Amino acid sequence: MDEECIFCKIGGGEIPADILYHDDHCFVIRDISPKAPSHLLIIPNDHVTYLTETTETLAPVLGGMFSAVREMAQREGVADDGYRLVINQGRDSGQQVPHLHMHLLGGRPLGEMG
Amino acid sequence: MDEECIFCKIGGGEIPADILYHDDHCFVIRDISPKAPSHLLIIPNDHVTYLTETTETLAPVLGGMFSAVREMAQREGVADDGYRLVINQGRDSGQQVPHLHMHLLGGRPLGEMG
Repeated sequence: MDEECIFCKIGGGEIPADILYHDDHCFVIRDISPKAPSHLLIIPNDHVTYLTETTETLAPVLGGMFSAVREMAQREGVADDGYRLVINQGRDSGQQVPHLHMHLLGGRPLGEMG
Repeated sequence: MDEECIFCKIGGGEIPADILYHDDHCFVIRDISPKAPSHLLIIPNDHVTYLTETTETLAPVLGGMFSAVREMAQREGVADDGYRLVINQGRDSGQQVPHLHMHLLGGRPLGEMG
């Protein structure tokens, strides 16, 4: 845990939030500035900033994040019509919180990827 | 392998392409209609359309795809400035080839996610 990290604070319960899903690897919240009717954030429980950091320990976490995606796409009702997963890494991507997370966007036809 | 699938044909060598990376899980080519200075496609060797299809066998493939991402972000020179990973799933996302693939976009500040 990084004591300055907002996602660590949400995952740890220090900042209250509507946690839609939580398992051993990750938790899911809604983006506070949604860019689509469904805009979720899939966030690892443990503090990781970049995909490049911790290759070996990150593999099962990434697997867990995709399990959460499958579950949440069903719950949000976007599994059939389609959805987009986005991971932003670093400055050029617009990554806003330096704790690895995956966006799930759906609920309307999506535009360009960036 | 799906005999009608262009990505299967590229991966299998039936359609010639500049394969930038190839391992046991996936291969990497450039998008033929690039949306950024670096726009790569990370494509599983085996034919899978959706993340939802084959949960158990897909986990190691996804792990392998992220290893390819790390390698290719370095080679493309976008690892430091940042990059975006995108997986489009189904109609609303604009998924154009029904064989699972991950976009890697970088080389400029990226815009909205969709």
